[in-house]
Amino acid sequence: MALSPLLTDLYQLTMLYAYFKSGKTQTASFELFVRELPKNRNYLVFAGLRDVVNFIENLSFSKEDIDYLYSLNLFPDDFLDFLKDFRFTGNLWALKEGEIFFQCEPVLRVEAPIYEAQLLETALMNQVHVASLLASKGARIYSVSKGKALADFSLRRTHGSDAGMKAAYSSYLVGFVGTSNVLAGKELKIPVIGTVAHSFIMAFENEKEAFKAYLKAFPDRGILLIDTYDTLMGLKNAIEASRETGIPLKGVRLDSGDVVELSKKVREILNEEGFKDCKIIVSGGLDEYEIDKILKEGAPVDAFGVGTKFGTSSDSPYIDFVYKLVEFDGRPVMKTSSGKEMFPGRKQVYRQSEKDLITLWDEKGEGEPLLEKVIEGGNLIKRLPTLRESREYFLDRFNSIPQELKNIYVEKEYPVYFSKELLKLKRELEKEIKEIKWKGRK
Amino acid sequence: MALSPLLTDLYQLTMLYAYFKSGKTQTASFELFVRELPKNRNYLVFAGLRDVVNFIENLSFSKEDIDYLYSLNLFPDDFLDFLKDFRFTGNLWALKEGEIFFQCEPVLRVEAPIYEAQLLETALMNQVHVASLLASKGARIYSVSKGKALADFSLRRTHGSDAGMKAAYSSYLVGFVGTSNVLAGKELKIPVIGTVAHSFIMAFENEKEAFKAYLKAFPDRGILLIDTYDTLMGLKNAIEASRETGIPLKGVRLDSGDVVELSKKVREILNEEGFKDCKIIVSGGLDEYEIDKILKEGAPVDAFGVGTKFGTSSDSPYIDFVYKLVEFDGRPVMKTSSGKEMFPGRKQVYRQSEKDLITLWDEKGEGEPLLEKVIEGGNLIKRLPTLRESREYFLDRFNSIPQELKNIYVEKEYPVYFSKELLKLKRELEKEIKEIKWKGRK
Repeated sequence: MALSPLLTDLYQLTMLYAYFKSGKTQTASFELFVRELPKNRNYLVFAGLRDVVNFIENLSFSKEDIDYLYSLNLFPDDFLDFLKDFRFTGNLWALKEGEIFFQCEPVLRVEAPIYEAQLLETALMNQVHVASLLASKGARIYSVSKGKALADFSLRRTHGSDAGMKAAYSSYLVGFVGTSNVLAGKELKIPVIGTVAHSFIMAFENEKEAFKAYLKAFPDRGILLIDTYDTLMGLKNAIEASRETGIPLKGVRLDSGDVVELSKKVREILNEEGFKDCKIIVSGGLDEYEIDKILKEGAPVDAFGVGTKFGTSSDSPYIDFVYKLVEFDGRPVMKTSSGKEMFPGRKQVYRQSEKDLITLWDEKGEGEPLLEKVIEGGNLIKRLPTLRESREYFLDRFNSIPQELKNIYVEKEYPVYFSKELLKLKRELEKEIKEIKWKGRK
Repeated sequence: MALSPLLTDLYQLTMLYAYFKSGKTQTASFELFVRELPKNRNYLVFAGLRDVVNFIENLSFSKEDIDYLYSLNLFPDDFLDFLKDFRFTGNLWALKEGEIFFQCEPVLRVEAPIYEAQLLETALMNQVHVASLLASKGARIYSVSKGKALADFSLRRTHGSDAGMKAAYSSYLVGFVGTSNVLAGKELKIPVIGTVAHSFIMAFENEKEAFKAYLKAFPDRGILLIDTYDTLMGLKNAIEASRETGIPLKGVRLDSGDVVELSKKVREILNEEGFKDCKIIVSGGLDEYEIDKILKEGAPVDAFGVGTKFGTSSDSPYIDFVYKLVEFDGRPVMKTSSGKEMFPGRKQVYRQSEKDLITLWDEKGEGEPLLEKVIEGGNLIKRLPTLRESREYFLDRFNSIPQELKNIYVEKEYPVYFSKELLKLKRELEKEIKEIKWKGRK
């Protein structure tokens, strides 16, 4: 379902009306980018394009929306009539879904009559932010996983339902194998994963009875949670339950305690008892630091279920995306608010060998251009890749970035250069604004 | 719109089927609580009850949901038939919306046939988590605001659309005066607030022209953003624009720079120029620490717009809520996983003078009982308060908690006691489980 056009900041609508009233309909270009990467992030992963396109294609005000705006006593009737037929008629450029990006690089550019381009800001930012935030956190977790399977278990503690869907989506994009979120399975066709909780065990007379009941219900997916009372006793009960029912034990899950120590012991017992094929799954409070530690200490874990710390990107819970006007009516623009510098003009990003170059759009840079046109005149002009295709794309791109960026313990800045033309334009505009300030202050 | 019943972890459905297959239909009680408060939080604010009730009342599987579950090849037809008619038939107890709560205190209890109660877990946690997380962060901001107006500007950087709605809701609940989120204005009847962005200024020939255009569009709401190029030059242009149009300047907004220094200077100039009634609004990277600092340094700010750090609860981006089985078929239960202790049995919380007491449900404690029955036999049995009523309730309760808890710089634990009966029951169950373990290990 498309987002409501009212999922926006009020000032987008008051500006829209002020543009309407002053007859401002010239073409504007806005770019979405990050000035500096957040702490603990040496790279970011672009995600959310499908939601952006879906929002843009379906952007229109319903009768109830117009009635609500009318009730605010802010807007005159002729403007509300204008909103009734509002559609996006402009162009959109974007990085490919799953692309790796860095500081100052535009991930989207919107080009449209200024009131249309402005109106997109809040929803675009909201959607790209959460999807890219979680993809970027997920990529760090993937980077330490040494080929072990990762599953998204975060839904219960993501910031609401939309974030829960994005967590499933973005984690699969960056190499996870599935999610516990059933709705994401249905709507995004992501493999769904899950077995039992502690409450299930507690609802039976004893642990072994609970295990037997679960094995009988899912004879092909016999994965049991063994730490409700005591992990090693749980393992013994799981083995007995498997033997007594004749149903194979496919896996055991550990959700608490010293999982390095316990997983080694569990593996040893499983092997001794003839359960060599039984997998060990670990969950509970995991993130890239914890998984890295567990694997480096030689824990024989086959899969990890990753929850809260992934689903809230807890060590760095936001990215300072900004959506800035870079060109208006053919003229490059910039603001100079203190601490908020930016580069003027429409830009392109070129990926070169272990560095990126940002140029003005009309220059020809060397390397691989990253922004491509997705929407023209309000219409999608290319098939968007499926999530599986984007996942392949991410995995390929992630392979090719410098290894040192993937060290989760060290902050390292990837080199992003600016073309001479772009630097010259910035200097010229800075000079121009300084002169205006000089005159303005007198 | 109600949440999908598939917005859940797969294991809720696999457990449901295992209960179905083993004929487990006994009554279970689950309680939702927090073992320890998160860092930087001396209290939490309960929010999200309306979404929980809405989810429970509308819980049913659509044909598409059943078709998807069928496609997973996990569940037999008789179970899917059973799901078609699934409804919640149990009871719900909850704190009042806007209640202050502490470690170990149940905020909700669900009592129902175990498969029904289990199925609610993920969605309940997802919704109560984000609403309470943001209410708790918002309350800290409110606690330092010294009566200045606070507005929620977080939508662009919340974790998705649902979190954006919860940010507007929860901030209003804890004393904010409005939100920039227009959809929240429409759906939750929260006052909406907003003026212009930097891009608006940049789209005009010069700053003064932009200001005049905006004043003409909103002659009753002349609030101008003055830091696009240079704050003091912006102020001069704003004053001139007001004089030249004859439209009063209601406020100026500062979004960058040293706002303490600048706001003092801006106030001085406004007063000198005869704009004594013009308000000063500050935004940009604010949280409770920043606002406290700004006000303590004597900045003459009238209102604050609070964004990203509030909307992501950035210093403490999750709360470890858990939903635990506490009674099954009339028998109190608990798990003993390492580091995850809990209290067995159905409980009540009593608020006493500057301390709380947790008892077993059937005891009679002293003080004010906090949990009340909301849903009985699947039906809502009392009118839920409006958001405005809950806001009043919060403000009243917040007034009455010890002042030292509101010190944002010092962690302080509020005393929560347990009744003798409850402690005795816990000891007995621990002993029982230890004996089982002893036997189990042999």
